[in-house]
Amino acid sequence: MTSFDTWLDKAAQHREKAGMTRRLSARDHGRPLLDLAGNDYHGLSTHPAVVEAAVAATRRFGAGAGASRLVSGTVSLHGELESALARFCGSQAALVFSTGYHANLGVVSGLSSPGTLIVSDAHVHASLIDGCRLARGTVAVAPHNDVAAIERLLAARTQQRALVLIETIYSVLGDAAPVADLAEVCRRHGAVLVADEAHAIGVAGRHGRGLLAEFGLAGRTDVIATMTLSKSLGSQGGAVVGSASLREHLINRARTFIYDTGLAPAATGGALAALELIESEPVRVERVRFAAAVLAEACGVDPPAGAVLSMSMPGPRQAVAAVAAAASRGVRIGCFRPPSTPDRISRLRFTAHGHHSDEELGFAAKVLREVVTA
Amino acid sequence: MTSFDTWLDKAAQHREKAGMTRRLSARDHGRPLLDLAGNDYHGLSTHPAVVEAAVAATRRFGAGAGASRLVSGTVSLHGELESALARFCGSQAALVFSTGYHANLGVVSGLSSPGTLIVSDAHVHASLIDGCRLARGTVAVAPHNDVAAIERLLAARTQQRALVLIETIYSVLGDAAPVADLAEVCRRHGAVLVADEAHAIGVAGRHGRGLLAEFGLAGRTDVIATMTLSKSLGSQGGAVVGSASLREHLINRARTFIYDTGLAPAATGGALAALELIESEPVRVERVRFAAAVLAEACGVDPPAGAVLSMSMPGPRQAVAAVAAAASRGVRIGCFRPPSTPDRISRLRFTAHGHHSDEELGFAAKVLREVVTA
Repeated sequence: MTSFDTWLDKAAQHREKAGMTRRLSARDHGRPLLDLAGNDYHGLSTHPAVVEAAVAATRRFGAGAGASRLVSGTVSLHGELESALARFCGSQAALVFSTGYHANLGVVSGLSSPGTLIVSDAHVHASLIDGCRLARGTVAVAPHNDVAAIERLLAARTQQRALVLIETIYSVLGDAAPVADLAEVCRRHGAVLVADEAHAIGVAGRHGRGLLAEFGLAGRTDVIATMTLSKSLGSQGGAVVGSASLREHLINRARTFIYDTGLAPAATGGALAALELIESEPVRVERVRFAAAVLAEACGVDPPAGAVLSMSMPGPRQAVAAVAAAASRGVRIGCFRPPSTPDRISRLRFTAHGHHSDEELGFAAKVLREVVTA
Repeated sequence: MTSFDTWLDKAAQHREKAGMTRRLSARDHGRPLLDLAGNDYHGLSTHPAVVEAAVAATRRFGAGAGASRLVSGTVSLHGELESALARFCGSQAALVFSTGYHANLGVVSGLSSPGTLIVSDAHVHASLIDGCRLARGTVAVAPHNDVAAIERLLAARTQQRALVLIETIYSVLGDAAPVADLAEVCRRHGAVLVADEAHAIGVAGRHGRGLLAEFGLAGRTDVIATMTLSKSLGSQGGAVVGSASLREHLINRARTFIYDTGLAPAATGGALAALELIESEPVRVERVRFAAAVLAEACGVDPPAGAVLSMSMPGPRQAVAAVAAAASRGVRIGCFRPPSTPDRISRLRFTAHGHHSDEELGFAAKVLREVVTA
């Protein structure tokens, strides 16, 4: 045993004792469960049009991009997806990354310099937090959804430039940011708003165009959207959406764009087809909201801003027990336990899916009612 | 114009004036070029078996994983690829990430704590550098391939734990690391060697199993390989290969694994099929080395350790001119200019491809001879 083996063992024992060990299991092994845990909100990852678009892209361009986007890894399909994303979001331009994580790392680090104040909401995703660590600026964390606190930090800054990092719909609690107020505060103080729409695109705002579009902020050059192609778009990858100048800047400065192989053709084509389905059939967006309202009613909570429902639990053990109870009844739900919750409260997390039939939705609601009130 | 627009404009003007603006162009637009720039070393991204495996995976599992691996984003295919990678590399276990960049960020940050010294070779990839910034340890940069300097840093350390970060074949210069010596130094000083085999897997070592396997280091628990699935495996994604305890640790601690959607089924299936082709037909590995030797001869340089050839140029303008001259003759080559080169020297960069026919190879050699001696 090397000292490294000993260190790994100790860490594993510590996790095990705290009941915090995470384990992988393949979803196609064991009994199939009705999924209320994933983020494929419209089930588009298995929609025939999306699957066939991914297949066609693979046959036309290959299984991988073969190089970074700047070398020879750009295919015309990347540009088509970028144009479609920009148009859908009401912005000038978009740049596709190979993950949503990369999009957030790239935009935060690529727009920061030592003279930049980065104000981050306390609940932002791991990728935005890591973006702060990679960035050369000064980071300040504001309490969750606290517009006044963000304004105070911006007003008191000594740095010339400032970024404000938020999610429009938060991943763990499922709540929305006060987007319009935040954009106004940013405008007043010459700060750039970077808003992660990962859980909003395809789900929130009119026709699923996100909360920036909903509040008329999409065309503003000082408001930047980031998003993932792996949730409502059923694929893989991420994007930054904003001005053409922003896109050009990121092509030249975002390390996670420059030094990474381009997004695989299959994921690019799949996301584009999914976007076209949401665009041409906006009823999907209504349906996912209906599903969310049904599940919320079953749990006795308010309908969420998007498709993510969150319920606080007395502790981690109760959360884990509820997940097991739901699974034994045929439904997969998720839970978050500290340290993965931003407020240190254990929570159940459900996601609504527009493609679940009325029968499946009724069944899910019944199981949630039993599990949540147990 | 907001102050942000002004800032973006100034940065763009600065780049333009320095001749450093990077622009995207789709490889399927314009005249097709013989590719000596990408990293799809065996052309497997378009091999029928790889394409059909990506297609089959998409049809079976969907266009995206739909959730993070720990929620419901793991499918059995992920496990099959992980087992195959571990076996191919001669290690116990592997963990697949959605990009090679993510694998490096995850392993460096996930294995570091404030009491860790991270010694990084000066030429490592951007993803390992960013991993250092994300990690909680203390970072020291050693001159390129300087075993003695690394030993001095390890011997003089006050931190209990240490990681040493290298690439087995470097991306820009194409040279190999003194892997056996580095592993011995790490062993002597109780340090963990993290070796990025991105440009070695499928290309270097017996049957393309990489340089760790070549030097009998693959089974050691204190030697960790990282790699990408997007170069010789023609797909997308990355992996960390090592002990089963390491895998379990990363599942629990690597943020880029935990907080990211699982690798898309297409990329997973494609990489697995590519690995099987390299395993069952190791002559591919010989062929890419032959191609590399032919190109090296044409340029008057020594055959490289893998498939990456590098030639220093008098300056950035000459490098850009050579790229343009090669393109006008029908061949795509790459160039690196400062600040993208670790040694601040402008370079041409070619990559050898095993699937180029003898005729294509002869043509490529002729063009390189003309361009390089121009």
